Amino acid sequence: MKQIEGGICAAQGFIAGGVHAGVKPTSHPDRKDLGLIYSEVLCSAAGMFTSNKVKADPVVLDQQHLENGVAQAIIVNSYIANACAPEGIETATKECQLVAKALGLREDDVLVSSTGVIGVRLNVEAIEAALPDLVRSLNPNGSDAVAHAIMTTDTVKKELAYEFELGGRTCHLGGITKGSGMIHPHMGTMLCYLTTDVAINKELLKEALKEVVGKSFNRISVDGDMSTNDSCIILANGMAANKPIIEKNDDYNTFKEVLLTLCVTLARQMAADGEGATHLITCHVQGAKDEDTAEQLGKSVISSSLTKAAIFGKDANWGRILCAMGYSGADFNPTNAKISFASKAGSFPVCEGGKGVAFDEDYAKTVLTEEEVIIEIRLGEGNGEATCWGCDLTYDYVKINGDYRT
Amino acid sequence: MKQIEGGICAAQGFIAGGVHAGVKPTSHPDRKDLGLIYSEVLCSAAGMFTSNKVKADPVVLDQQHLENGVAQAIIVNSYIANACAPEGIETATKECQLVAKALGLREDDVLVSSTGVIGVRLNVEAIEAALPDLVRSLNPNGSDAVAHAIMTTDTVKKELAYEFELGGRTCHLGGITKGSGMIHPHMGTMLCYLTTDVAINKELLKEALKEVVGKSFNRISVDGDMSTNDSCIILANGMAANKPIIEKNDDYNTFKEVLLTLCVTLARQMAADGEGATHLITCHVQGAKDEDTAEQLGKSVISSSLTKAAIFGKDANWGRILCAMGYSGADFNPTNAKISFASKAGSFPVCEGGKGVAFDEDYAKTVLTEEEVIIEIRLGEGNGEATCWGCDLTYDYVKINGDYRT
Repeated sequence: MKQIEGGICAAQGFIAGGVHAGVKPTSHPDRKDLGLIYSEVLCSAAGMFTSNKVKADPVVLDQQHLENGVAQAIIVNSYIANACAPEGIETATKECQLVAKALGLREDDVLVSSTGVIGVRLNVEAIEAALPDLVRSLNPNGSDAVAHAIMTTDTVKKELAYEFELGGRTCHLGGITKGSGMIHPHMGTMLCYLTTDVAINKELLKEALKEVVGKSFNRISVDGDMSTNDSCIILANGMAANKPIIEKNDDYNTFKEVLLTLCVTLARQMAADGEGATHLITCHVQGAKDEDTAEQLGKSVISSSLTKAAIFGKDANWGRILCAMGYSGADFNPTNAKISFASKAGSFPVCEGGKGVAFDEDYAKTVLTEEEVIIEIRLGEGNGEATCWGCDLTYDYVKINGDYRT
Repeated sequence: MKQIEGGICAAQGFIAGGVHAGVKPTSHPDRKDLGLIYSEVLCSAAGMFTSNKVKADPVVLDQQHLENGVAQAIIVNSYIANACAPEGIETATKECQLVAKALGLREDDVLVSSTGVIGVRLNVEAIEAALPDLVRSLNPNGSDAVAHAIMTTDTVKKELAYEFELGGRTCHLGGITKGSGMIHPHMGTMLCYLTTDVAINKELLKEALKEVVGKSFNRISVDGDMSTNDSCIILANGMAANKPIIEKNDDYNTFKEVLLTLCVTLARQMAADGEGATHLITCHVQGAKDEDTAEQLGKSVISSSLTKAAIFGKDANWGRILCAMGYSGADFNPTNAKISFASKAGSFPVCEGGKGVAFDEDYAKTVLTEEEVIIEIRLGEGNGEATCWGCDLTYDYVKINGDYRT
């Protein structure tokens, strides 16, 4: 397995493109806000979506379109979330119809996503007007354009691809994602699109995606707010001509491993680019009763406002970590807790047997100044292990969200 | 029922005092950090404590001392939480022993609380040295001293008392509380002390406290971090000589009503004085399936970082409110949701039937500029109603918590 260029166009048969449609009329003409992903052939397709009771209409529609486990194109816009919006389902449906007509596809083989402000009507007329340009923009190097078109408060685009072998055939898996605020996914993530030329049936594709999302995107948090639009969609078009994966054999495991590596890397990038973030916080829990317990503890720590603010201040205030473990609801004994901070600059223990241990404050500041800060938690109560990712809470998070709509 | 002066000394037979003990050696000598509350006679006593799995040692000890339902004195310090700290249970025990000896009480009739930094040993030697002065400081006007001694990042002291009648006898109920950060109580609150001269048996006192805390302190949140030290303790010494309350009669209901009014007022003061807060956010949910559902929805809204940041920015970004309702886990239908903003300056609807309605942005800013912003949610799904209180998320919250220890 090696990392390659190309993002979602790295896999054979996938092309993509993006344009400025003026979804928000006052946005800059250089700012792409509409993207399209297309596979030459019909794909096995699976998606994971928000478990928020308030679901954006594109999410509702995608769940219907994915019932048959196949899809061939995805259209996505930024600026407007098309959630709780007037004519929400009508505009989402219209987008699929427009794409289906332009590309000669069945309407239910088109998926649609939106991200941006909640409650505002999506300007589907602008999308309709831009569609001919959007279709013309499709090209084998178009991943970058879509990756940019889906950005909102993101400061960097998130795009990644791997090449790997299955039974002697060269296969590819690529992905793009966006997400910076309202990040606290559960059974889904912010927008994420994955493409692969691996031949795999839809049942196993869905199972692999579900398992991997649970260990990657579902283990990050920026602000504890679970979005109405979380969607992670994978398209597998089979053009690598590998022996189709129809059982949980070595090929399935290899594919799942590549998928996990890719999703974890993208998830880390999302957390690191959390709104206003200056630190990526990685919390690694070992020795919990089981994996669920480890995850519950890790997520509580990376979601704690006080812990996040302490990391912003480069302050080894570990009591807030043990406190967050305590209210997580997880089953563990605080007197078994051993906690350390680590980074590229070094590491130091702060708590053993649930009690504080002395450490050098100057050295602590040096360690906590690094961009990635690792919180190591060991319990010695079992083999449960999980890693979760978050970011610090900063002035800029408040600034960005104090006037997001304006 | 009328509001009176005197705080926790308003009830007959209660005296209190506070001194600077130097729990934190570098603190200013004018800053009180040690308080004592004393009743002339033994009291019915009840407490509600944190449900955090990581409990401070004073909490553990108080739970033991309250098993018999009686108590007569409370000692409390700020700066050090005595949670996860070396010799935690020993120092807490020592404090009770010292007070018991000085006042001629049984050791288990003394309660102890601490608030401040987690993980640091409590300097019990400083407390021992200050104890003679502390006892001398006890006086009928001492409520103010204790209310100040328990403050940490609080910017205002929280103190309140009411006078009311039970069967022709004049009774009193007073309380003080502290809490500004790490506020997300469950089955308890930050430090809160309530005193009354009402005669009531310990069983009913406990039941009334539990019910009232559930509708007051358990409905506020500053930052979603549940403390290790949350404690709400009530002492009832019976000196009002009312007919003792031993059944759920009118007197019990009157007492409970006064207790609720007092606790709600203190809870609102805590939320309004949340770390860095510039707005008190009141979320009033009506028409939910039942009261639990209403509370679940309200707490999710006032805990949402994005909603809190929007209120800081005076931005009527109501989509974040509906989003927070959606991920609350509560059972409701988003298409029934009607949401309005209100304040002293007026009110305006933002969402009906789960969809946005137009509003005037300038008028919205005027309404949201007021110190208390009310979020009104109506569902029409039943009679469930609850009010929850929080505060906005500001630059100062980040600043305060970026270097709390220093």
